[in-house]
Amino acid sequence: MPELRKDPIVGRWVIIAHERAKRPHDFTGEAQLQAEGSFCPFCEGNEDKTPPEIVAYRERGTRPNGPGWRIRVVPNKFPALKIEGNLNKRGEGIYDKMAGVGAHEVIIESPQHHISLPELPEENIREILWVYRDRLVDLKKDSRLVHGMLFKNVGSAAGASLEHTHSQLIVTPIVPISVWEEMTGSLEFFNYRGRCIYCDMVQQELSTEKRIVLDTSHFTAFCPYASRFPFETWIVPKTHSSHFENIPKQGVDDLATVLRQVLGKLELALDNPAYNYIIHTSPFDHQELPHYHWHIEIIPRLSKVAGFEWGSGFYINPVPPEDAAAFLRETEFPAAPTPIISQGTGLA
Amino acid sequence: MPELRKDPIVGRWVIIAHERAKRPHDFTGEAQLQAEGSFCPFCEGNEDKTPPEIVAYRERGTRPNGPGWRIRVVPNKFPALKIEGNLNKRGEGIYDKMAGVGAHEVIIESPQHHISLPELPEENIREILWVYRDRLVDLKKDSRLVHGMLFKNVGSAAGASLEHTHSQLIVTPIVPISVWEEMTGSLEFFNYRGRCIYCDMVQQELSTEKRIVLDTSHFTAFCPYASRFPFETWIVPKTHSSHFENIPKQGVDDLATVLRQVLGKLELALDNPAYNYIIHTSPFDHQELPHYHWHIEIIPRLSKVAGFEWGSGFYINPVPPEDAAAFLRETEFPAAPTPIISQGTGLA
Repeated sequence: MPELRKDPIVGRWVIIAHERAKRPHDFTGEAQLQAEGSFCPFCEGNEDKTPPEIVAYRERGTRPNGPGWRIRVVPNKFPALKIEGNLNKRGEGIYDKMAGVGAHEVIIESPQHHISLPELPEENIREILWVYRDRLVDLKKDSRLVHGMLFKNVGSAAGASLEHTHSQLIVTPIVPISVWEEMTGSLEFFNYRGRCIYCDMVQQELSTEKRIVLDTSHFTAFCPYASRFPFETWIVPKTHSSHFENIPKQGVDDLATVLRQVLGKLELALDNPAYNYIIHTSPFDHQELPHYHWHIEIIPRLSKVAGFEWGSGFYINPVPPEDAAAFLRETEFPAAPTPIISQGTGLA
Repeated sequence: MPELRKDPIVGRWVIIAHERAKRPHDFTGEAQLQAEGSFCPFCEGNEDKTPPEIVAYRERGTRPNGPGWRIRVVPNKFPALKIEGNLNKRGEGIYDKMAGVGAHEVIIESPQHHISLPELPEENIREILWVYRDRLVDLKKDSRLVHGMLFKNVGSAAGASLEHTHSQLIVTPIVPISVWEEMTGSLEFFNYRGRCIYCDMVQQELSTEKRIVLDTSHFTAFCPYASRFPFETWIVPKTHSSHFENIPKQGVDDLATVLRQVLGKLELALDNPAYNYIIHTSPFDHQELPHYHWHIEIIPRLSKVAGFEWGSGFYINPVPPEDAAAFLRETEFPAAPTPIISQGTGLA
């Protein structure tokens, strides 16, 4: 069973994943993506090489764990956290720990191997967003769990070990420290000014325009004023909302367009960089909050994080966000192709 | 002039280093170490290829910016912050910024190219520690500056761009957020228990022994209970002290032994991994503090940080610190070689 341990100084939790453990000698080289052309457990036809699916969007008449799916959600084969068991919170002298209870799922975004997310039709990206929502809504019912983080790793430098397009969901029994920091910071601003800071930010970005990458009826994509990384880009809903899972249908329709365009621009402008995106959303145990605002942060992994950044939390960014945004605005990514799959909406 | 900008939500500052700016197309590949055998500006004889030295420990009779040095401190040729100018703090709507005033120096630890820090004699490592202290004491006099961070990047995966052994010092006009978090967390513990949490930690580690890597009269090296990374190792002084620059001579003598042994064990056990070390110490504008305790954190860079870690601040560590410590304890690193240079202590 993995173990959650708390750093007693800053309150940061870590997952000690015994069962993912490697021998020290396994660490003498850098992790790499699986070799080009090697076996891929996420490809259509290899469904028996993953744990049984939790949910899939499939063609009518196809069977679970067989071909015929458009999106497939499976438990991570090497999970950081496990869904069974009690939290068993306890101390160890000055330290605190609990059992590594939680969920770790993989969202396989396409049956095809050689495709990136922005190469998918918007219709398929909408389904990816719906599956994100479905999984959060389902896991929220488990009273042991308090927060769900949806994220995507693309490329070896961004921590991906498989090339086939996928994202992940990790649901934790503790609110992650970075989420707390955002919740606390935005609450302070709300208490002082009576407004949501993200709403203010969207307003200021739209009025100055210089950091805007894309603006649609429901979303604004911009390079944040204090970007940590070159070409860091946030996608923020224009209407206040604290929980991603409460997104309306029109929001999903529009977000698919925005996500596809923004990632397409990044892939084109930076020649298929490694990147992460992360959906920042409120913990489960709150109703709609006036101070917090869900959003997506996209981080291209172009430079290495060095000792100064690790020690200080201070980031050195050699590309002003105004320059990055101008470059991305000018990069033309083609409009959506015809849907690959439009027939059938059966849900297995 | 670089610009410091503050993230209005979490209060994190970033350095927008316009003058290190690159064209977007420069980011289409990963940064690499300079090629083996290419020209090295840090080698003896190439002193005119760096900005003029700030200080050097040299043989008697040798001239500044010429050969004959053992350690040489120069301004970073591509500084993240600049020493000239006023802070010029101002707002930009909801955002805050100031001029990027500060110091960014490089400590070249040896005139020899093909040597790593633990391959140096202890006598030379002592001098490196003295030069660290000298630079902090000197820069502390500048009332615009409030914190100095000493760190070392080894290997491309750790953010190093030059192979020649060196460390860096960045002195900022703002206390970095990670330093604040440590100060605040340890103050909370102190207010609650009346003790320093680092002192408690050293005591508990010494009594359980299972995470100890090395224990000497003045320092304890251990893999922390909530290690974020495989083989993360901290070196903590056994006597309470909040400021690195107040280290006594006996402390320097002993720390050179410990640092050399711990890095030597890591290099041997993990086959010369990329790593960072960072000296965590109090801000300048405080007297000795009862709640904070300076220490060194060593982070081998064996795995990539992925989207989950970026978004959550939650780390997944597949190697329990108890296993890492046992492996490092058992790795025998040879005792110190005879000093390369023992004659002369002239300071230019």
